[in-house]
Amino acid sequence: MSKQFDLVVIGAGPGGYIAAIRAAQLGMKVACIDAWQNGKGGPAPGGTCTNVGCIPSKALLQSSEHFEQVNHHFGDHGIEVKGVSLKLDKMLGRKNEVVKQNNDGILYLFKKNKVEFFHGKGSFAGQADGMYQIKVSGTTDADLVAKHVVIATGSSARELPGLPFDEKQILSNDGALNIDAVPKRLGVIGAGVIGLEMGSVWRRLGSEVTVLEAMPQFLAAVDETIAKEAAKVFDKQGLKIHTGVKIGEIAKTARQITVPWTDSEGKEQKLVVDKLIVSIGRLPYTGGLQAETVGLKLDERGFVQVDDHCKTNLPNVWAVGDVVRGPMLAHKAEEEGVAVAERIAGQHGHVNFETIPWVIYTSPEIAWVGRTEQQLKADGVKYKAGSFPFLANGRARALGDTTGMVKVLADAQTDEVLGVHIIGPVASELIAEAVTIMEFRGAAEDIARICHAHPTLSEAMKEAALAVDKRALNF
Amino acid sequence: MSKQFDLVVIGAGPGGYIAAIRAAQLGMKVACIDAWQNGKGGPAPGGTCTNVGCIPSKALLQSSEHFEQVNHHFGDHGIEVKGVSLKLDKMLGRKNEVVKQNNDGILYLFKKNKVEFFHGKGSFAGQADGMYQIKVSGTTDADLVAKHVVIATGSSARELPGLPFDEKQILSNDGALNIDAVPKRLGVIGAGVIGLEMGSVWRRLGSEVTVLEAMPQFLAAVDETIAKEAAKVFDKQGLKIHTGVKIGEIAKTARQITVPWTDSEGKEQKLVVDKLIVSIGRLPYTGGLQAETVGLKLDERGFVQVDDHCKTNLPNVWAVGDVVRGPMLAHKAEEEGVAVAERIAGQHGHVNFETIPWVIYTSPEIAWVGRTEQQLKADGVKYKAGSFPFLANGRARALGDTTGMVKVLADAQTDEVLGVHIIGPVASELIAEAVTIMEFRGAAEDIARICHAHPTLSEAMKEAALAVDKRALNF
Repeated sequence: MSKQFDLVVIGAGPGGYIAAIRAAQLGMKVACIDAWQNGKGGPAPGGTCTNVGCIPSKALLQSSEHFEQVNHHFGDHGIEVKGVSLKLDKMLGRKNEVVKQNNDGILYLFKKNKVEFFHGKGSFAGQADGMYQIKVSGTTDADLVAKHVVIATGSSARELPGLPFDEKQILSNDGALNIDAVPKRLGVIGAGVIGLEMGSVWRRLGSEVTVLEAMPQFLAAVDETIAKEAAKVFDKQGLKIHTGVKIGEIAKTARQITVPWTDSEGKEQKLVVDKLIVSIGRLPYTGGLQAETVGLKLDERGFVQVDDHCKTNLPNVWAVGDVVRGPMLAHKAEEEGVAVAERIAGQHGHVNFETIPWVIYTSPEIAWVGRTEQQLKADGVKYKAGSFPFLANGRARALGDTTGMVKVLADAQTDEVLGVHIIGPVASELIAEAVTIMEFRGAAEDIARICHAHPTLSEAMKEAALAVDKRALNF
Repeated sequence: MSKQFDLVVIGAGPGGYIAAIRAAQLGMKVACIDAWQNGKGGPAPGGTCTNVGCIPSKALLQSSEHFEQVNHHFGDHGIEVKGVSLKLDKMLGRKNEVVKQNNDGILYLFKKNKVEFFHGKGSFAGQADGMYQIKVSGTTDADLVAKHVVIATGSSARELPGLPFDEKQILSNDGALNIDAVPKRLGVIGAGVIGLEMGSVWRRLGSEVTVLEAMPQFLAAVDETIAKEAAKVFDKQGLKIHTGVKIGEIAKTARQITVPWTDSEGKEQKLVVDKLIVSIGRLPYTGGLQAETVGLKLDERGFVQVDDHCKTNLPNVWAVGDVVRGPMLAHKAEEEGVAVAERIAGQHGHVNFETIPWVIYTSPEIAWVGRTEQQLKADGVKYKAGSFPFLANGRARALGDTTGMVKVLADAQTDEVLGVHIIGPVASELIAEAVTIMEFRGAAEDIARICHAHPTLSEAMKEAALAVDKRALNF
């Protein structure tokens, strides 16, 4: 017999589990289906983000940053240390424990909010009388029926043609988080968020890391000033990054991987490494969904086709997160999940795509919201720019971490903040103020006139805003 | 011969130097007088904040936190260390270097902004034809004349009656930053910001620290929920804090200090320590100003008397910062400094006292803005409260630092945010978002609907705001 629900959510990543909880809060009877398994075959809700993305990478970034600090920077503070050694299994074990806490947290939230969880793969089995039949194949099979469906099946890492991930030598984000011994030589193809974060982790732990990027420009989506600073800092840290490269045919033996590549000047090069991370983007994941059974439309790139409100071509079927257009970011998925749950309940959920922040959790961190200087130029917008270096910030000096800057871009005429770009300590947290300002369509002068606690890094935001009006006080 | 200025600023602390720079930006001819000397007798502008307050304390807090981490927490991350040793002279040297960078920074800013700096003590010598005569006694004596004067002479530490600071055994904030060997037993009288920060530094470095506080309640100015959590955490760290105590007559010998005290239950106790920090508040500093020469009015507590606009009883004489009413905070002084400079220039500078953030830089940090729950109750305001623990925050778990919470207080009817209270990692930076929301008189729902990057600590702010409406998603 089929179980009846108001809403079935397929996928328990950030988009899916949040949509399920919000819908339950709004009074719906909700099921959430997710196939992810932990090491013991049990459920591991949270999707890529929790299992092999945001969360475990941040755990390793933190641990490896401690390792970097104790090895290279504690002396400056008058702390002398003898015999630092790395217990990689313990470091990875801690990371796995953090992941498990998050998995368990989501299962707890499902219980608390009375969302029924099904561990398995969800697929469309049919539709009748305005209801969708959803089949669960997994730990226990089940047949569900619901009026509303939210598809939140996420994305998976893109492979290089002819070079499938084996997660031993050729690593996706998954394998990159689980290397069991620090490789002497590590190659990374693709200098995006994942490549830079994972490259940073293993460099700090002792690998010689080379990053190859096909795009001519480093971090092309990032504001140019910030990207330039980032390139300088990463180079100083020992990350070897080459842009504008062409990758040749990669050869793999049991012992090593050989990557022939052509540099930006056309010269042939060869990279020989022990492990290779391939981080060249992600593809929407709709495998096993049986979209065709109900006639769900995908676009030419495999994304579930949706309108601005996350509606698919089918009545009462919605899709959110990485499986639809827009940035593949956990918090974008969450916002869509909340908005869709509210729309189903007859409310007017809204996602403001103009104020979704971006973060790269390298050290220093990079974070931004709104348009870059190059985008404003391309859009023909007249703007003013102000920036302030952490070198002139008292808190950064006290921390001993003065790399980077804050840059504020504002409309030349109205002074409205159009973009804020940060590279520096705790950038991931500092960006929240900028998002808030932009949500209120505030001006650079607003930031400049708001009292910022002293000494804090966020004073750099105030000073950058003052600099927009050419009147920084501390630079 | 007297040198003529549009404005003379007495004191180059955060209020004074910022007022001087802002006035110079607005076209005035400005002098700034400051007597602080560095170790070599040279100028050390920046006041208490830069020399013996905010900046050096944050440098030592950071260094000592590293020491704490490597000694007690790196094992969890799989980082094993043999033999950690403390080179206190190097740690203090680094702190001094950070101070010097800030001193030099201010001198550079004066040059850049064409503010003429005088190294010495400034005092009123007379007044004639609407101009004030200001005498500088110091490295080089000078006679200045100006139409406008800003008094920014700051504050100094309050002594216990009969127990003057010798800065060897009986320490103010100054001596507390310069103890040349980690004392075995350290006493702290006064569990305010300075007492807790300095107590934390020396506890981390190995001292047995006992804090005695006369007030019956711990951190009475802080929201009760937060203060309670803080007491729990500090106790766990090993800071022994006693509240509601009465201090008896303190006896000092060359070897130790004996503090007889009565506990909150009336029982006689005795504390014997090697060093004693006395941090029982600060007094406005007007020594040497010769206020009487021109008839400048002080209030009964010794503060320069000013109105809401920082105007004194004398025409064109202003006062800002610790030497006037209001919280003794560097950023409050800065805001007043800017506002006064703008008022002198005929603009309409404004300081919003309702949105001045407070920070205590312990670990975890404590930060807040707006009213506490107990204040709202006392004011008879109907409010809603929402809080979210860092225990349920993914970034905090990844960092390995899940202590504390964010609490949002909003008007029961309008939902306007009335206060935000944080204890937890990076609270000092997270508070900037809350200040921004309050400046725009935003609602809790505004915070809740703003996209926060995942995974960040600032998501706890969003969740606390959701909790105001009883619909946190992740707790």
